[in-house]
Amino acid sequence: MRLDLSADVADLTAAIVDIESVSGNEKELADAVEAALRALPHLTVERVGENVIARTGLGRAERVVLAGHLDTVPLNGNLPSRVEGDRLYGCGTTDMKSGVAVALKLAATVTEPTRDVTYLFYECEEIEAERNGLRRLAASRPELLAGDFAVLMEPTAALIEGGCQGTIRVEVAARGERAHSARAWMGSNAIHKAAEILDVLRSYEPTRPVVDGLEYREGLNAVFVRGGVAGNVIPDECVVTVNYRFAPDKTLDEAEAYLRTLFAGFDVTVTDGSPAARPGLTHPAAAAFVAATGAEVRAKLGWTDVARFSELGVPAVNYGPGEPTLAHTKDEFVEIPLIADCERRMRAWLTA
Amino acid sequence: MRLDLSADVADLTAAIVDIESVSGNEKELADAVEAALRALPHLTVERVGENVIARTGLGRAERVVLAGHLDTVPLNGNLPSRVEGDRLYGCGTTDMKSGVAVALKLAATVTEPTRDVTYLFYECEEIEAERNGLRRLAASRPELLAGDFAVLMEPTAALIEGGCQGTIRVEVAARGERAHSARAWMGSNAIHKAAEILDVLRSYEPTRPVVDGLEYREGLNAVFVRGGVAGNVIPDECVVTVNYRFAPDKTLDEAEAYLRTLFAGFDVTVTDGSPAARPGLTHPAAAAFVAATGAEVRAKLGWTDVARFSELGVPAVNYGPGEPTLAHTKDEFVEIPLIADCERRMRAWLTA
Repeated sequence: MRLDLSADVADLTAAIVDIESVSGNEKELADAVEAALRALPHLTVERVGENVIARTGLGRAERVVLAGHLDTVPLNGNLPSRVEGDRLYGCGTTDMKSGVAVALKLAATVTEPTRDVTYLFYECEEIEAERNGLRRLAASRPELLAGDFAVLMEPTAALIEGGCQGTIRVEVAARGERAHSARAWMGSNAIHKAAEILDVLRSYEPTRPVVDGLEYREGLNAVFVRGGVAGNVIPDECVVTVNYRFAPDKTLDEAEAYLRTLFAGFDVTVTDGSPAARPGLTHPAAAAFVAATGAEVRAKLGWTDVARFSELGVPAVNYGPGEPTLAHTKDEFVEIPLIADCERRMRAWLTA
Repeated sequence: MRLDLSADVADLTAAIVDIESVSGNEKELADAVEAALRALPHLTVERVGENVIARTGLGRAERVVLAGHLDTVPLNGNLPSRVEGDRLYGCGTTDMKSGVAVALKLAATVTEPTRDVTYLFYECEEIEAERNGLRRLAASRPELLAGDFAVLMEPTAALIEGGCQGTIRVEVAARGERAHSARAWMGSNAIHKAAEILDVLRSYEPTRPVVDGLEYREGLNAVFVRGGVAGNVIPDECVVTVNYRFAPDKTLDEAEAYLRTLFAGFDVTVTDGSPAARPGLTHPAAAAFVAATGAEVRAKLGWTDVARFSELGVPAVNYGPGEPTLAHTKDEFVEIPLIADCERRMRAWLTA
């Protein structure tokens, strides 16, 4: 299968959608993307696994990265793609092959961008983090992700979503002492004690920190609770798993320290965590992007792959033509005019 | 193996202990007990499974039941029995073959009791309730358990433990609404909501009802808690399993109604329950027993087989020569003088 990068961006999207690429099965699409990019003399192309990286090398003062994942969630009777009116339906249309098509179209046609550009197409975004192509490249070949600013072309309904909140999970354990439940006073009930942990969660008032002009919204929630030994035993342990979503004004260490203070007196064990990412909109390349696209900017509350750039010191935003609420649905579609609109706005930015 | 019921009660205890009868393996001991009792012309003997029932039929105004289980917990390197000073060591010495020996000795030697007596030796007390011999007889042959008063010869350290508390378990469920934990405000956290269930438990003040002169001590405790969907999802359900131990001034239905009132607004599901048993010490046969033994009387807080008699309308108490804290231990023993003392006191009661 050959990709024709001279085609209209909507037709290019349909062609990409019709190359099935459920996570783990990206090879055919990565081959097609690699072949199409290698035909372009102004780009240097590398292939690492099922990841394809193409770069201009014009010696510009700034370098920006446009990134998109090649994989989709499993099919749901929604291939091949089909057009109905202004909509292109099919698995991956919104998440995020329309974004990939825009990036490929720009790669082919913006031969002399005003900023050097790295185009980065990667595998396994929709599955477990260990296999995520961007994560693996960040660990093994961080220089391929280097730049002053990055745009992940995930579906955002044409809004710019800046930075992302961090997430940390801790297990907070209440201790007690076992006893037969017929003589409860001889023990100490850890589940009753855990009510004090829940009291902390109930009385928590979510803060709304403003970072680089964007308002975030933190959250502190129990996501699991477990306790109990037997139906006639006073339990000696109750563990509440707490998930803290924190704004990019805190580091991961600061988030952990905050939780340890909040749950002082209980055993606190960190099970996993990912740092927040600042939107970085104060950088000139980012400001130019916002101006050129003319899109509304808001804070990204969930954790996304932009944080992987942030960890390497590259500010990053999400921006793409897809509608995020349609992602992973059977009836996923993308509005065709938005794909061309996105291409036009990003072209303006790269050529200004 | 033949049992010599003319032997001293301590020697008889040792002989019974040395016939291994871990739950499910009572046949040899039941055979020996049956054979010894069938040799006594003043008793009518029945065998049902590994249960042996022997009765006097003197036409007395009252009938009392002396009951004991034949089985023990698994061996722990503690057979055969051995004597050290005043102590008889071995599996089942305290729980409850010394009690069985007392009952057998009385069966053999009190040929004309002032109350008719039913001696009841049963299987499978130490394991799951479905196999409990007393429970099975109560269901299939309730007339064999009939009487005005019953004594279970479980180890009580020579105290009379009257009645028993009831137990009921309910699942109390808090409901919420799922959402991504990065946007917690779009959902409703069921684990946080469950704190209200724990608040009820924390603020509960255990009552101490007095029934037939004995003080009971109720308890209300969480024994299990579970909740959670995934590490990034606001949970929509949290279930607290509550165990209520209630005094015999309440029926099982009243206990359930009390819990439904206490947890109004939550889904309450009964998972299991067993009624309490009144001590019945106001009955003349019981009062005579207390007077003849001269033992201190206290409330039984745990649930025991006396409740099976109570369900059939027979008041019952626990009373036996064993030391309850030694039950189920490797170094289980019984104080030899207490066995003869118990025999003497019960003989006085049955012949007064």
